[in-house]
Amino acid sequence: AVNGSRLWQSLMDMARIGATPKGGVCRLALTDLDRQSRDLFVRWCEEAGCTVSVDRMGNIFARRPGRDDSLPPVVMGSHLDSQPTGGKYDGVYGVLAGLEVVRSLNDMNYVTEAPVEVAVWTNEEGSRFAPAMVASGVFAGVFDLEYGLSRADLDGRTMGEELARIGYAGDREVGGRKVGAYFEAHIEQGPILEAEGKTIGVVTDCQGQRWYEITFTGQEAHAGPTPMLRRKDALLGAARVVDAVNRIGLKYGPLACATVGLMQIHPNSRNVIPGRVFFTVDFRHPDDGILKAMDGELRAEVERIAGEIGLESDFTQIWYYAPIAFDATCVAAVRKGVERTGHSFRDIVSGAGHDACYLSKVAPTAMVFIPCIDGISHNEVEETTPEWSTAGCEVLLHAVLDRANA
Amino acid sequence: AVNGSRLWQSLMDMARIGATPKGGVCRLALTDLDRQSRDLFVRWCEEAGCTVSVDRMGNIFARRPGRDDSLPPVVMGSHLDSQPTGGKYDGVYGVLAGLEVVRSLNDMNYVTEAPVEVAVWTNEEGSRFAPAMVASGVFAGVFDLEYGLSRADLDGRTMGEELARIGYAGDREVGGRKVGAYFEAHIEQGPILEAEGKTIGVVTDCQGQRWYEITFTGQEAHAGPTPMLRRKDALLGAARVVDAVNRIGLKYGPLACATVGLMQIHPNSRNVIPGRVFFTVDFRHPDDGILKAMDGELRAEVERIAGEIGLESDFTQIWYYAPIAFDATCVAAVRKGVERTGHSFRDIVSGAGHDACYLSKVAPTAMVFIPCIDGISHNEVEETTPEWSTAGCEVLLHAVLDRANA
Ligand SMILES: NC(=O)NCCC(=O)O
Ligand SMILES: NC(=O)NCCC(=O)O
Repeated sequence: AVNGSRLWQSLMDMARIGATPKGGVCRLALTDLDRQSRDLFVRWCEEAGCTVSVDRMGNIFARRPGRDDSLPPVVMGSHLDSQPTGGKYDGVYGVLAGLEVVRSLNDMNYVTEAPVEVAVWTNEEGSRFAPAMVASGVFAGVFDLEYGLSRADLDGRTMGEELARIGYAGDREVGGRKVGAYFEAHIEQGPILEAEGKTIGVVTDCQGQRWYEITFTGQEAHAGPTPMLRRKDALLGAARVVDAVNRIGLKYGPLACATVGLMQIHPNSRNVIPGRVFFTVDFRHPDDGILKAMDGELRAEVERIAGEIGLESDFTQIWYYAPIAFDATCVAAVRKGVERTGHSFRDIVSGAGHDACYLSKVAPTAMVFIPCIDGISHNEVEETTPEWSTAGCEVLLHAVLDRANA
Repeated sequence: AVNGSRLWQSLMDMARIGATPKGGVCRLALTDLDRQSRDLFVRWCEEAGCTVSVDRMGNIFARRPGRDDSLPPVVMGSHLDSQPTGGKYDGVYGVLAGLEVVRSLNDMNYVTEAPVEVAVWTNEEGSRFAPAMVASGVFAGVFDLEYGLSRADLDGRTMGEELARIGYAGDREVGGRKVGAYFEAHIEQGPILEAEGKTIGVVTDCQGQRWYEITFTGQEAHAGPTPMLRRKDALLGAARVVDAVNRIGLKYGPLACATVGLMQIHPNSRNVIPGRVFFTVDFRHPDDGILKAMDGELRAEVERIAGEIGLESDFTQIWYYAPIAFDATCVAAVRKGVERTGHSFRDIVSGAGHDACYLSKVAPTAMVFIPCIDGISHNEVEETTPEWSTAGCEVLLHAVLDRANA
């Protein structure tokens, strides 16, 4: 019922924008390349007869009318921004699977009861601007608009400035309207489905997250004449925290994840003892109590390590959300879609955060996962197959019809 | 016999070029700011009646004729480039103390037997281009010219290109001429003189150095859905090496120094497991055998750590020189200078590398140290006093006269 090769072609066309040599994409949020991908999406949606609107966080909504246009819409969506060395499918798949649902409905001249929308959420990745999912968070009332617009990249440019610069600072109010149901299709980004030979993941839950920013300040000094015992080496402190973060992840394993992904060393010169290091920590667990225990251990380790080297430490938890259970009715709609299409499946907990996490705060929500090769994502080699892509879109179509005609 | 306030004023004037908010300078080798400092030095030297020439490595020589101009010159010098967050004295002091010797000789209408020169060596710091002291190394025949000109910064720009760009690719052959003696005045950059209340350090030796570049390659992957046990986290590996480097430094203490000063994380995004990390190691010791033992331990640790995480490792020692003993006659000339001027002193081993290390390969060489506050260098707060600055210049003058009239 969906046109899988059209969907695949659209994925490949979109992947040309910001294409990297190793087959991935670099399309950081609110860059010129992000604008190009938005422009292409908007053009495709208008060609599909949708009405496009943009809100003040730059979230884009392409609407296909329903028979009763006063009903709250069923929304599908995800994001078009990527990691610096991201893949072709992370986010884009959910957006273009949504568009393919609309195109398929058009092909069938099918009129749903409720309107159907395809959404693009701004800065889902949280790479250029932290935290992740900030614009869907504003939509859901988790963050206020001012907070969203003032998020700044490492060069100090804010989301508000950059939205205006690329022409996607829309005038629509962010959120504050009823959504009948939200469905997000996505690659799994982990190894489970492929390892078990399942085509569809029926996502029942998302694990919780805590993100931290830590700055250690010691004292810059010459690497040659400064005795080891006189040093206050900020990088030595950060290195010990990296190892401690790994220990915490292993201790609360196998479900815990603990990562230091970003580090900036100052002044970053071979023969200077680093005087200041800024770095981040990313903790995840499906059990909120364990996430809290990990938090406690991190705080203790950072304090201990700063103390043993004589560093000043600036420690901030910049993001937290508790594990999320999706809506039973929407999950059931996904499961019915799997049954109708006959694909193999299993229930799954999402390891990544998704805009669906925040949408779930204001709308009945569920997600559809498809496998990705070797479970690799946030990597230019990220890959899935046309068959899996088509299967996920079929399930999405059925889930949407279930809710839009309810 | 020298004009200490003129010297201090020149130091302050030079420090305006690339001045930083915290009172230091940022004047990386072969930047526009480096050119400005060279231009000012050349102007001052010409005003002092010197003849200025520049060699193909951008080394500058300002010559004051001797009574017998066919005698090999006595050369004083150091460097004008700085660390990214460097101080006002590191290098500059030796250059301007040399200039002050020339100015004082002029004031006294004093004609030395041999000619006297003030040298500025290119890229002593080794911060923008590694290794350090590369242009004095070419002068001394330790490196060939091609090697020197092809050193590249982290953005791939070479010293040859940058010398041409700032107009300091001279036409004089690099080295290949006789130097009667070389004297370098410098701040100590360590805590010993100040702690012991001595004004002058008579530098007898320099410790040896080994510099390394290490790249760990693992696999970029998503920080959320990637189980701890499936990870190949390049930053975890680098962090463990940072800790191992510190352990090695402590183990061979109190004289060993071991530092990781520079690290680049790829892709450096909060929710991506780092796939590649490039970092450097700086080892120092006055005993070559111990330096060799440290090298062996580093190699073993890097191999062990890469193995335990499953990382590919690219390990290169990019620089090595054995500890250096300065020339007995030149050291004696410095000591005589201290005795004549009556300043307190002690013999000292240099913890930092200096252009004098390479000059010692082709000329009788010694150094004069003055204290710096709290032993702090390679830091914007680096400080010395006008009294110490004057004292060091007096000693330099006497040492130079001793050799130029020998
Ligand atoms: N799906 C995805 O990659 N989201 C980015 C936010 C996160 O790190 O969980
Ligand atoms: N004197 C000085 O800071 N030299 C830089 C080279 C080194 O690190 O030893």
